[in-house]
Amino acid sequence: MTVGVNYPEEFAGYAVHDVKEWNHPKYTAYKPKTLDDYDVDIEIECCGVCGSDLLTAQGGWGDLKCAQVVGHEVIGHVVKTGPKASLYKLGDRVGLGAQAFACLDCPRCKAGNEQYCAHSVTTYDGVYPDGYVSQGGYASHVRAHEHLIFPIPDEIKSSEAGPLMCGGLTVFSPLKRNGCKPGAKVGILGLGGLGHMAVMFAKALGADVTVFSRTNDKKEQALKLGADAFVATGKEGWESELFDSFDILLNCAIGLSGLNLDAFLSILKVEARFVSVGLPSVDEKFNVSPHTFFSNGAHLSTSCLGSRAEALELLDLAVKHDIRPWVEEIPLTAEGVSEAMTRCWKGDVRYRFCLTDFHKAFGTGTYAN
Amino acid sequence: MTVGVNYPEEFAGYAVHDVKEWNHPKYTAYKPKTLDDYDVDIEIECCGVCGSDLLTAQGGWGDLKCAQVVGHEVIGHVVKTGPKASLYKLGDRVGLGAQAFACLDCPRCKAGNEQYCAHSVTTYDGVYPDGYVSQGGYASHVRAHEHLIFPIPDEIKSSEAGPLMCGGLTVFSPLKRNGCKPGAKVGILGLGGLGHMAVMFAKALGADVTVFSRTNDKKEQALKLGADAFVATGKEGWESELFDSFDILLNCAIGLSGLNLDAFLSILKVEARFVSVGLPSVDEKFNVSPHTFFSNGAHLSTSCLGSRAEALELLDLAVKHDIRPWVEEIPLTAEGVSEAMTRCWKGDVRYRFCLTDFHKAFGTGTYAN
Repeated sequence: MTVGVNYPEEFAGYAVHDVKEWNHPKYTAYKPKTLDDYDVDIEIECCGVCGSDLLTAQGGWGDLKCAQVVGHEVIGHVVKTGPKASLYKLGDRVGLGAQAFACLDCPRCKAGNEQYCAHSVTTYDGVYPDGYVSQGGYASHVRAHEHLIFPIPDEIKSSEAGPLMCGGLTVFSPLKRNGCKPGAKVGILGLGGLGHMAVMFAKALGADVTVFSRTNDKKEQALKLGADAFVATGKEGWESELFDSFDILLNCAIGLSGLNLDAFLSILKVEARFVSVGLPSVDEKFNVSPHTFFSNGAHLSTSCLGSRAEALELLDLAVKHDIRPWVEEIPLTAEGVSEAMTRCWKGDVRYRFCLTDFHKAFGTGTYAN
Repeated sequence: MTVGVNYPEEFAGYAVHDVKEWNHPKYTAYKPKTLDDYDVDIEIECCGVCGSDLLTAQGGWGDLKCAQVVGHEVIGHVVKTGPKASLYKLGDRVGLGAQAFACLDCPRCKAGNEQYCAHSVTTYDGVYPDGYVSQGGYASHVRAHEHLIFPIPDEIKSSEAGPLMCGGLTVFSPLKRNGCKPGAKVGILGLGGLGHMAVMFAKALGADVTVFSRTNDKKEQALKLGADAFVATGKEGWESELFDSFDILLNCAIGLSGLNLDAFLSILKVEARFVSVGLPSVDEKFNVSPHTFFSNGAHLSTSCLGSRAEALELLDLAVKHDIRPWVEEIPLTAEGVSEAMTRCWKGDVRYRFCLTDFHKAFGTGTYAN
């Protein structure tokens, strides 16, 4: 049964029309972008709920450009390919993360840094050269460049593959790029959607992993995920015994307001890395004295998503090390979307929601034929 | 003629007694620290004037711990060595920078990162384990660990060697550690005491060098120092044509207040480095949105001084490439110190003061005998 979806002329999805109603998206039909040479259409099966979805819906990163379908942890099947697309055939099970387009022609793309392409278009809330505003994955279909679409191994079920597309790649790339390997000591700040995947990938890459969280509430879960140690940062002076210990600190919390950056920088080794991957609202800033860095020459940075090569490596590693996000499934309905967004904002999820049963909501078309 | 110097029981120097009188240090006699096994006494010939001297004297980094002799770009001759010191013999011409002690036994020291040793004692305003507050180089003598004292090549005259000890090493180390080499594109922010040396060392290391300054006033001098390009940042939109250009930006300005960090980070390549070496007063902070880094994953850091190995390499490079700081000499007197500190604070120097003629102020003793 197809409910109001007139594919391929129209997609349908749950769109935020007003930031005040950010957690009550409405069923909305809309035109897809023009089908370009390398575009692929995915008929969506499920989609993870990412913190970015909430901040975009709330206007935390800027006003909505139009009625906005969010969602960029998409899993589904290929139902159409552009005239020059060659990576996938109809029916392939694939995933799409937070990036829908890169030029593949600039120095950044050619160096395997397509996530930093100046022509990059995000999966939703991005603007194509013709002015079309991209629409995300709480929807019947999504259209994106094949390079940003990844093949999903049979071993990983769809609802567990979804969160790997954005959250997984977002933590995996900076771990790889900043030297997460056997012998490295890695700290993960915040055990949530991003953090719990970071623990598993850092362990799979061979590092010694410590989880930092405000209280001891998540200690047991951190150890179950594979962490070697756990530090509750609510206790005054927690940093004093950890001086000069860490090679990488990966900040997986979205907000910066409660972050004691001075304390965390002090536990880094010389020239070690503090990398933030949660992207807060635009009015939150790093506020840190140069004197803080002066004791170890540490580096502070933010990392953005990951490359296709890293996505493929991540999926391979997930199969080999049996890494699966901890997912709570919620069937896609108006109520389901609202519940997932609301509870995710409250942190009431262990550790990632995946909206499922898209075929019940939208029906199924081409690929199943 | 020795004026009030009772070496070796007492040293004499120009000490700041009150931060309100920061630019009027007074002639003061004081006890040196205990002579430890590896200590070396230098009878001082001249001493550069560093921005750190001014901020310390002003209380910008915290209250004065005692009447404080500043100065950490010291050149002089060895007049005494501790019982186990073996690197120098009496009469050797040597230099001392901003660090007077490192333990040489901790992992940081053993890895050639002694500038980040947790037991490090700075040349002035540092505290030894016995509570002695270190006294700097606007003085007759200084006592420091031989490891932090460097041999001065005959080719470099003393007043030009002085500024290499702190300022030179402070810019050289982060250039080396962040990949300044042939093919690298390096930007130097601020053409002053630190910046003008950074231009010369970056060029000597083979990089393509751009100087950033507010106005075009220093353009001619930048090019004379060897810079390949010059950008006046007072002009709105200067950054737009420089997107994705730089491998390293070295911020050599002391203050952060006028720094458009967002603009500078935007011109870095993927995962490139913004390194600040000027250390502002403790109330000035980096204030930057994680979103700013999101477009290239750039790294922000502060670098502290350099290692002995880097100091020796710097001196070698200075000889080979004929690198000399541009120095204005001022003879050491109460008036001379005051003039140098006052004009340095105003930026009225091209580009570094060196206080000279210490033997006229304090007389000369052992080494000349």
